[in-house]
Amino acid sequence: MIVTLTTDFGLRDGYAAAMKGVILSRAPRATVVDISHYIAPFDVQMASYVLWQAAPYFPPGAIHVCVVDPGVGGARRGLVVEARQHLFVGPDNGVFTPFLDDAARAYELANPDLWLPRPSVTFHGRDLFAPTAVHLAQGLPSSECGPPVGDPVRLPAWDVRREGDTFTAAVVHVDHFGNLVTGLDHARLAELGDGPFRAHLPGGETLPVRRTYVEVETDEPLALIGSFGLLEIAVREGSAASFFGLDRGAPIRFSR
Amino acid sequence: MIVTLTTDFGLRDGYAAAMKGVILSRAPRATVVDISHYIAPFDVQMASYVLWQAAPYFPPGAIHVCVVDPGVGGARRGLVVEARQHLFVGPDNGVFTPFLDDAARAYELANPDLWLPRPSVTFHGRDLFAPTAVHLAQGLPSSECGPPVGDPVRLPAWDVRREGDTFTAAVVHVDHFGNLVTGLDHARLAELGDGPFRAHLPGGETLPVRRTYVEVETDEPLALIGSFGLLEIAVREGSAASFFGLDRGAPIRFSR
Amino acid sequence: MIVTLTTDFGLRDGYAAAMKGVILSRAPRATVVDISHYIAPFDVQMASYVLWQAAPYFPPGAIHVCVVDPGVGGARRGLVVEARQHLFVGPDNGVFTPFLDDAARAYELANPDLWLPRPSVTFHGRDLFAPTAVHLAQGLPSSECGPPVGDPVRLPAWDVRREGDTFTAAVVHVDHFGNLVTGLDHARLAELGDGPFRAHLPGGETLPVRRTYVEVETDEPLALIGSFGLLEIAVREGSAASFFGLDRGAPIRFSR
Repeated sequence: MIVTLTTDFGLRDGYAAAMKGVILSRAPRATVVDISHYIAPFDVQMASYVLWQAAPYFPPGAIHVCVVDPGVGGARRGLVVEARQHLFVGPDNGVFTPFLDDAARAYELANPDLWLPRPSVTFHGRDLFAPTAVHLAQGLPSSECGPPVGDPVRLPAWDVRREGDTFTAAVVHVDHFGNLVTGLDHARLAELGDGPFRAHLPGGETLPVRRTYVEVETDEPLALIGSFGLLEIAVREGSAASFFGLDRGAPIRFSR
Repeated sequence: MIVTLTTDFGLRDGYAAAMKGVILSRAPRATVVDISHYIAPFDVQMASYVLWQAAPYFPPGAIHVCVVDPGVGGARRGLVVEARQHLFVGPDNGVFTPFLDDAARAYELANPDLWLPRPSVTFHGRDLFAPTAVHLAQGLPSSECGPPVGDPVRLPAWDVRREGDTFTAAVVHVDHFGNLVTGLDHARLAELGDGPFRAHLPGGETLPVRRTYVEVETDEPLALIGSFGLLEIAVREGSAASFFGLDRGAPIRFSR
Repeated sequence: MIVTLTTDFGLRDGYAAAMKGVILSRAPRATVVDISHYIAPFDVQMASYVLWQAAPYFPPGAIHVCVVDPGVGGARRGLVVEARQHLFVGPDNGVFTPFLDDAARAYELANPDLWLPRPSVTFHGRDLFAPTAVHLAQGLPSSECGPPVGDPVRLPAWDVRREGDTFTAAVVHVDHFGNLVTGLDHARLAELGDGPFRAHLPGGETLPVRRTYVEVETDEPLALIGSFGLLEIAVREGSAASFFGLDRGAPIRFSR
């Protein structure tokens, strides 16, 4: 039984640990894995991106609990999503968008028998999502959690547009190293024909798309296909975000 | 067998990992859970608060090792505390105060047979507390660790005073989000009668006590009962610590 | 089966979690332990130091995966190292130097059957090292990974020189607390005869070598033998790095 956690709680406080305690109290042999507790506070898009990266590497049956939840205590629903042999438990705020394909099934968390007694209105991660995840891990069908949800909240698709022989793709994530990851998948870039390709930055710089970092000198910028298949702007052994002064949302053009 | 760790070691160095190695070398099937390694350096009160939050969610029999230990190498004793079906192992510096009720039993760590050979004078977490925790997890009675301790060090109680129809409560913790958590439990506030209640900040601001964040607009401040039952000052999707320029110790008044 | 991870990935992104997913997909009962994900980006020396600290505390058979890998995608080899009943998997860039004694055996990672299909050129941690670690944990002999490597890359030895009755030792690590750890082992210092000893800092300050922090007042500096046997400069409940404005590489002299 594998339960992963993705939150914006940080690691100073006892919040993530309280969730682990809830899980291990009910399933002492569970393997609880942190995906990230350093999602930027309330940043549902970042949580969605990080889940998209990491969740698929876990084995079938893994249960992914996400608590990036600015709407907690309000009208937003709680969800369990069945997708690609994984389960996802968390708020219905778009964080599970990458997994909401046509085959996905979603159910509302509406069955208080599955929660902690007297749940708080501000920490559903501990009081609703964690205990529900344990029930699911122990074999409870998702449909027992509540009624089907036909219209789960979805984030806007990554901003990637093709105009003629050019793709323009927004930066969707800036990682720990300062790599600027765009939403352009390498398979789409190939629609433009054979390479070599070039990246055009908002400041006017043009960078060849390379295969890997070591094709340029230390501290030099490059474009490349990152390890999750997306085109990105990087600096060898440095931070492209600092080098170019760019952040999420910056438009990067790609052409031959 | 669950062993939790709460330290001020951070996660850059190999200190927490060395403790995990010591535990797993002696108990390969132990489940070691990080509560926090980002206690502010030497901040015994913060460690005490975070343990108070997280430890009760773990199952009976869990062993909580804490290494926030400015007095290591000096005269301060090491302790094992039995309280509420949990065990606590660490320095006798007040960090276990929330668990030192009348039913708690404390013993000094005075039995070198339970420690690593040739223990250091600067890293009791690795050399005394971790191996002792394993012995306890394997069934050693606490009383085998050393003589009973009748007067374990206690931190001062949280500063909460009632004067007439007003409670004044100091901020006891500022969390990752910048929420200002006071020591006033919601049950005590109810002694003032029915709500609604109001919070009065040192700068003169008055905030209604709300039920949850989404009752105010984004970036607006509010007071509410946090998920651990304490009154706190928050900003919806923001940091109350930054908004009000307040820190631990700030006095917050609550009234009807 | 214990697999440890030491990377410069940080904990914001899904990189470390993707590696854990790869491991747990192939070995669901593995115990995956984080040594550190906060190695400074591309800092092979720091990774080597942290591994030197933590790895020896794990039980025989532990497999230590390290991904601090500025040369990924280039000509640098991947390695498995057998040393002191542990296995180490990662790039051949010197990170395993502390374990490369005469009895160590190293093999190149040259067997694609052990890797993920279609490995990336930028994330060997996930695509080569993690799956190889699982094969090794399941009993695959290291020699099945590839040909023996007789000349693995080694970092320069720690800069420690004796001139007459003085040792000069460079700071090799600045830890989370700001302690300045030198490469001088206490056993070498004893070559100078009986103490007491003194440390001489680049700015001209002289500090007695103490036994432990509490021998000086709070906020006062001292020298002492740290918990891993190395001479270090510290400030009681403070940061020696800030106090003296020193960083890695600073030369500290020790004498009677």
